[in-house]
Amino acid sequence: MDFIPKRIPIKTGHRYIIVVNKKTAHQFDLQPGDRVLARKKGSRKEPLRCLVEISDNGEFTANQIGLFTETYNELGIKRGDKVRIEVMEKPASLTYIHKKLDGHRLNAEEINEIVKDIIEDDLTDTELTYFVSGTYVHGLNDEETANLTKSIVNNGQTLSFKDKVVIDKHCIGGVPGNRTTMVVVPIMAAAGLTMPKTSSRSITSPSGTADTMEVLCNVTIDAKKLQQIVKKTKGFIAWGGGVDIASADDKLIRVRHPLSLDPEGMLLASIMGKKYAAGSTHVLIDIPYGPQAKVKTINEAKHLKRRFEKIGKLLKMKTRVIITFADEPIGQGIGPALEAIDVMKVLNNTEDAPKDLRAKSLQMAGLMLELAGKAWKGNGYKKAKQILESGEALKAMQAIIDAQGHNKEQVRPGKFSYDVIAPKSGTITKINNKLISRIARVAGAPDDKNAGLFIHKKLDDKVKKGQTLFTVYSDQKERLSQVQDQQIPNPYTIS
Amino acid sequence: MDFIPKRIPIKTGHRYIIVVNKKTAHQFDLQPGDRVLARKKGSRKEPLRCLVEISDNGEFTANQIGLFTETYNELGIKRGDKVRIEVMEKPASLTYIHKKLDGHRLNAEEINEIVKDIIEDDLTDTELTYFVSGTYVHGLNDEETANLTKSIVNNGQTLSFKDKVVIDKHCIGGVPGNRTTMVVVPIMAAAGLTMPKTSSRSITSPSGTADTMEVLCNVTIDAKKLQQIVKKTKGFIAWGGGVDIASADDKLIRVRHPLSLDPEGMLLASIMGKKYAAGSTHVLIDIPYGPQAKVKTINEAKHLKRRFEKIGKLLKMKTRVIITFADEPIGQGIGPALEAIDVMKVLNNTEDAPKDLRAKSLQMAGLMLELAGKAWKGNGYKKAKQILESGEALKAMQAIIDAQGHNKEQVRPGKFSYDVIAPKSGTITKINNKLISRIARVAGAPDDKNAGLFIHKKLDDKVKKGQTLFTVYSDQKERLSQVQDQQIPNPYTIS
Repeated sequence: MDFIPKRIPIKTGHRYIIVVNKKTAHQFDLQPGDRVLARKKGSRKEPLRCLVEISDNGEFTANQIGLFTETYNELGIKRGDKVRIEVMEKPASLTYIHKKLDGHRLNAEEINEIVKDIIEDDLTDTELTYFVSGTYVHGLNDEETANLTKSIVNNGQTLSFKDKVVIDKHCIGGVPGNRTTMVVVPIMAAAGLTMPKTSSRSITSPSGTADTMEVLCNVTIDAKKLQQIVKKTKGFIAWGGGVDIASADDKLIRVRHPLSLDPEGMLLASIMGKKYAAGSTHVLIDIPYGPQAKVKTINEAKHLKRRFEKIGKLLKMKTRVIITFADEPIGQGIGPALEAIDVMKVLNNTEDAPKDLRAKSLQMAGLMLELAGKAWKGNGYKKAKQILESGEALKAMQAIIDAQGHNKEQVRPGKFSYDVIAPKSGTITKINNKLISRIARVAGAPDDKNAGLFIHKKLDDKVKKGQTLFTVYSDQKERLSQVQDQQIPNPYTIS
Repeated sequence: MDFIPKRIPIKTGHRYIIVVNKKTAHQFDLQPGDRVLARKKGSRKEPLRCLVEISDNGEFTANQIGLFTETYNELGIKRGDKVRIEVMEKPASLTYIHKKLDGHRLNAEEINEIVKDIIEDDLTDTELTYFVSGTYVHGLNDEETANLTKSIVNNGQTLSFKDKVVIDKHCIGGVPGNRTTMVVVPIMAAAGLTMPKTSSRSITSPSGTADTMEVLCNVTIDAKKLQQIVKKTKGFIAWGGGVDIASADDKLIRVRHPLSLDPEGMLLASIMGKKYAAGSTHVLIDIPYGPQAKVKTINEAKHLKRRFEKIGKLLKMKTRVIITFADEPIGQGIGPALEAIDVMKVLNNTEDAPKDLRAKSLQMAGLMLELAGKAWKGNGYKKAKQILESGEALKAMQAIIDAQGHNKEQVRPGKFSYDVIAPKSGTITKINNKLISRIARVAGAPDDKNAGLFIHKKLDDKVKKGQTLFTVYSDQKERLSQVQDQQIPNPYTIS
């Protein structure tokens, strides 16, 4: 049917919306949120998929429709044009979303249909939420998860490298200062292994690997450039958001946020998807567990380990999973610059390099050398240590930094600082990671690259009353006052 | 913290939205969809609850915030004003929604908190969807359903009548032409029982009871006026939407639509809530079942019957539930005027009054007289029949029509019509209700009051080739052509 378009001078974001009169809605059996195909009468352009809103207030007659700005422009309406409307079937993916909500398994085609519609913005937030709910309540089994991963990857941008071995690692977050990636990548590169690493920026933490790397060099690099870099340096550490892989994943994360839902299947697909999209053949997954980590118990960690291994197999990626106990920050720096300083100390083999960051990085690098066949089983750690101590890892890191675009600014902690001292003598029995992160964020991390903490004392250390536990840094003096104003409790428990 | 407001000249509907810069978001740990309290610095007005959006494109500096039109106006911003922002805790109801999604039971307070937040528009569509999902997947038990009903009612408008007995009925939809209400209400009124009936308009059917009653008189009447009418006439048949009871229910229905979800607990709460809000003490529920009805099997119907009885008990309403088989339209008219004609024939005791509508109405009225103690058990049908045949029911209906505001227009079928004839001889073995409804809607019902169908032949009738099966009416000739253009299959199966 043909309608006279009336422009509604309001932008609605990325969605195309048309408004119909109540009578028209009745006639076509339309309800708010239904979909129609709209095109300018006589136009040969592909019809535009639009969402319907219904107006009840007499603003439009039965032969008029309202078009919001984007819809009006996209249809290319000029004075006197008419708009032809055709009712669209509901997308097939809605049937599959319903099926999942009812507790049934979805096959590869069904999952792919959902992911395709997510990427093409054909599903509303309400519809996406039903998909997340179904997945959260009924779970995704290993096959569904592998299929979800493949769909997310195949419907997005991918990287591909000609190398036989492409190695990657992932650590399930929640541990501040955990910057092993920046030590592991240069060790791998020095060993001749291709490791194209895309990392995330901070969402709720004081710094993500991409934020920390950004202190040293550029991290926003497109896929084409990254492929050139790898040829030269074997590895890179770039921001995943610059490459736009797994965009369906990002859209799902938005509706997961209000209830902070982490449906296991989606978590697994999200992690494995990024590896798969980067063309990884070998993957090491680190699952830190502990009361303060994302994964709380060893049993949960074991369950996840089994699933990662299974899904890795289905995706034909050689996957090794380690479980580590983690109950305090790793390294001494918290915040982009302070963490970058830690990393460079380890790569430079300085005396004051944080021992835990060094040890954990070597452990992971060793396992990865074994996984990729660059070291005999049991010999990886030793080999990784040789590469680190010989300075080859440092050299590889410098080459990567140069290739990504060296940041010439001095790497230093914030200009202003204050010490937090032990209120009594004793042994440190707990460090609250959440409070550590909060202090670093209020001090300005990650936007103020130089803001954060330097941790002097760690778990099980003995302290005397008045000794410095940690120092807070910022380039903005008022941020330090804000930390003190907010009266954040001391993260340290001394017994 | 205080910000400089920048107006964004876009309306966002009923929600208040503010936009903050990414740095500000980091600093306050805000993510899109989080909530803040905003007020004009120095103002004593209650702070405004706003949803946060985050801008990434440099449109706002760290000390500016963007305010969409409604937010800007509501805060009463003038040149030079600053806006103070305070981060709000997530509403407690989100915790309860999460709890339900995890499969736990909710207590009365938790349910009430959710309903309160729904009514105050404090929950986003995504959050509402999680509540619907949890309810759909895990169900609501009888107590939860009774509590949901109470909360919906107590947080909305209610009607109250001084009468000891306030009787009501409800039929679980899906059967075209089912206008028993308009026969039952006058019989109850004539028997001296108070029956304040709020009915719905059509959503996807050719007519709702409110649409059909509207052919005879006004149905949009506010709560105060309705209470006056009841004093005079004992009963009324008004549009529920004019009274605004159970508005939380309407908001839930919106997010249920995309998947057409009818979580049982919500369906029960929605039906019983309307009775409870109208102060009903006695309720008859009719559950039609059959392959074409909303309820498909007798077992489903029995299960619902048990739940209605239990919830009725918890709400202290005397509830009787009947199960009826229904597999064809009731009466002969489909569409507002044609159905009103059927009803008036029954009340006038004319020879050609549709027998099925008469019989079903008398059955229900009889049971209601028994339920309310106006007839001995087994004697209700007889008493209802007396009231109908004596003309008292007709008199009561005329009084109701006058009290609500008589519509003086002639009640008649559409000016244009065409007959659909039997393509062969035989017995009618199926009438497809969905196709009947579709034809009536394309012909113009319910907006064109006179559009619809008159059914000449019913199930099990014998027909000869060329006899008229049904006649389609409309006041707009082109609508009849549209029915033919759409090539809707013949709803009749003749074997």
